[in-house]
Amino acid sequence: VTEADHYDAAETRDPRERETALFVRLPRVLEAALAAPGWRDHFGPLDPRAVTDRAALAKLPMLRKSNLPAMQKAAPPFAGLVPVPAAEFAHLFTSPGPIYEAEPRDADPWHAARALFAAGFRAGDIVLNTFSYHLTPGGFIMDSGARAVGCAVIPAGPGNTEQQLDVIAAYRPTAYAGTPDFLNILLEAAEKQGCDAGCIRKASVGGAAFPRSLQDRVAARGIAAYQTYAVAECGIVAYETPAREGLVISEDIIVEIVRPGTGDPVPDGEVGEVVVTTLDPRHPLFRVALGDLSAIMPGASPCGRTNRRLRGWLGRADQTTKIKGMFVRPDQIAEIARRHPELARLRLVVTRENEIDAMTLRAESAHADGALSNAVAATLQVVTKLKGAVALVPPGSLPNDGKVIADERA
Amino acid sequence: VTEADHYDAAETRDPRERETALFVRLPRVLEAALAAPGWRDHFGPLDPRAVTDRAALAKLPMLRKSNLPAMQKAAPPFAGLVPVPAAEFAHLFTSPGPIYEAEPRDADPWHAARALFAAGFRAGDIVLNTFSYHLTPGGFIMDSGARAVGCAVIPAGPGNTEQQLDVIAAYRPTAYAGTPDFLNILLEAAEKQGCDAGCIRKASVGGAAFPRSLQDRVAARGIAAYQTYAVAECGIVAYETPAREGLVISEDIIVEIVRPGTGDPVPDGEVGEVVVTTLDPRHPLFRVALGDLSAIMPGASPCGRTNRRLRGWLGRADQTTKIKGMFVRPDQIAEIARRHPELARLRLVVTRENEIDAMTLRAESAHADGALSNAVAATLQVVTKLKGAVALVPPGSLPNDGKVIADERA
Repeated sequence: VTEADHYDAAETRDPRERETALFVRLPRVLEAALAAPGWRDHFGPLDPRAVTDRAALAKLPMLRKSNLPAMQKAAPPFAGLVPVPAAEFAHLFTSPGPIYEAEPRDADPWHAARALFAAGFRAGDIVLNTFSYHLTPGGFIMDSGARAVGCAVIPAGPGNTEQQLDVIAAYRPTAYAGTPDFLNILLEAAEKQGCDAGCIRKASVGGAAFPRSLQDRVAARGIAAYQTYAVAECGIVAYETPAREGLVISEDIIVEIVRPGTGDPVPDGEVGEVVVTTLDPRHPLFRVALGDLSAIMPGASPCGRTNRRLRGWLGRADQTTKIKGMFVRPDQIAEIARRHPELARLRLVVTRENEIDAMTLRAESAHADGALSNAVAATLQVVTKLKGAVALVPPGSLPNDGKVIADERA
Repeated sequence: VTEADHYDAAETRDPRERETALFVRLPRVLEAALAAPGWRDHFGPLDPRAVTDRAALAKLPMLRKSNLPAMQKAAPPFAGLVPVPAAEFAHLFTSPGPIYEAEPRDADPWHAARALFAAGFRAGDIVLNTFSYHLTPGGFIMDSGARAVGCAVIPAGPGNTEQQLDVIAAYRPTAYAGTPDFLNILLEAAEKQGCDAGCIRKASVGGAAFPRSLQDRVAARGIAAYQTYAVAECGIVAYETPAREGLVISEDIIVEIVRPGTGDPVPDGEVGEVVVTTLDPRHPLFRVALGDLSAIMPGASPCGRTNRRLRGWLGRADQTTKIKGMFVRPDQIAEIARRHPELARLRLVVTRENEIDAMTLRAESAHADGALSNAVAATLQVVTKLKGAVALVPPGSLPNDGKVIADERA
């Protein structure tokens, strides 16, 4: 591991230095954000100067990504959460929801350059970028990142396989950015038509699952492919590095993992919902719950980057389920936990018995007794308006998969 | 007309100053271009220092756009005509042909900012850009131009009408860039669905014809729409201004109008083929014949811009036609003119008589005599390998429409 392996010195600094830098910036960004009516309403009375560490941050209310469409519809375009006028951004996007997103006027506004650098992209590379540039930010995220690294970009977009093969033959791109599936489609089409796509030796893939079988197939063709975890709200959240151990979190972003249905950070290693805070005063996000499950990996990356690492995408956090025609939400399970502090982890297991929905709340408890079990069952009914069984289990016996509601109906 | 009506002072300088500036740069750019093997082969022995005015430029060989696909295929990607490696550009494109084009790393690499400024685009505008960003440069031409002016851009691309209406409702864009037809589609869809698209008050349209009827329809909706003449090779060639008199030629580009089939400039006002020379040493073009017909408009624009003006797109220059199964090309007609300097304009009229192709060469001549007529008919047969009639007509009697071969078969 040498200096040339990293995009800049920020990636290898002492983690305490990074933490200090992030939390020195946070109060100032919060203060700027309070100029926006959406954040003022969201926070209520708040002293930004007091939010100087993770514990203080964890006390701020969360903002659920799933609520953004309704909030933005009520106050277009940005729900009053962006302090700067829309016309002052470089690009304006929409992504499924619909959610509307702004791109600041920066060289690398989505923080993709270091992800691409970690994937081996360098000045002199020609990148075939097959993410779409239309309406959604995907294409622009990788485009600006690649150009910040010094690459030239072919803005190919998805589809048009035939034309993409022509472009590969003419420009001989050395790198690919796009979904893993489309990379596979291109490589198979090239093989079928006798087009030499061997110029592509590196890839940054995202936007979809990259199963082991596909990883092997891509590697067998001599392509080193690295994953990114990106969202339309803020770009690259975390990215894979040559260490191949989880995804290193981006600089300039604070990631928390919280228990689904709550805003409470879980201990490192436990699976929970990914919550992001970003520090651009023109377009800040505070505790936005992305709806994705992940976990912090313990230890440091052998690649030399000192930032914390995510285990990758481990599923959807929003486990809201319909049981006997009624919605049951993760925050209701969190409410049960609040009312019974003697319980550790909770998991509502939903099954189907004799053609009817049934539910059992499995609750970790050091002391199993009937009185506790009955009290929890009563709370379950009050909170969910549904009757269910309660099973007390030993602490640590429930799986660490972030599931608060496990739907096991066939 | 005030200073605020122009993008910069270059637009209103004394035309002689512009001409001098262009031809001071040209020899240096030619010298840089000779580092590229394609230009060396194309020019043969050449002293770049001697090319200091239009007369000297007109002696250089032309490069036909229609020959680029074969030339690039033989020496990918750029036929050896680009002195800089492909990886040093920002974006790499392809357009129908296929022709491959490079975008230099500049804020406004396609010279679109002044065209959009002339169309009323200003900082603070939000632009709905419906040109495609995928593979072809259209979307990027207007995107970089609009951002250079200070606008925010919604990279919408073409199609997805429903989603575009959502985006119009959310962002309230004030300006449109795209084809005139798609603007009409959007406005009609908005009306049908009760979506208020009245926020759009200005438009830059190109890439297709903008007939009078459509101009009226767009104007009736309160939208001031201005046309551009752009090509994938170098971006904006000329653009309409509030004077509404022709299209003002871009700064930093030399436009010639030549007789189709030749490299010879026609007098101002006469219709001929558009030939461009651009002055970016990283990616220069010298006398590239675009295949489009236009003419220089006499006089100066009332908008204050002092550059020469094109009458707009007046048709395709390539008039190659099959007569009795044989191809007849404009350069053959030019060859006849070379052999008979006593003739002015020539026009080969192709008709159908008794189910057979027939051709008559109409030739302007001050002196009509049978001997000349017979000599021209003999030359016609030698050059085209086809028999045809000759009709001598008075000077100035043939139409000024750039047609060297007029196919009048039904």
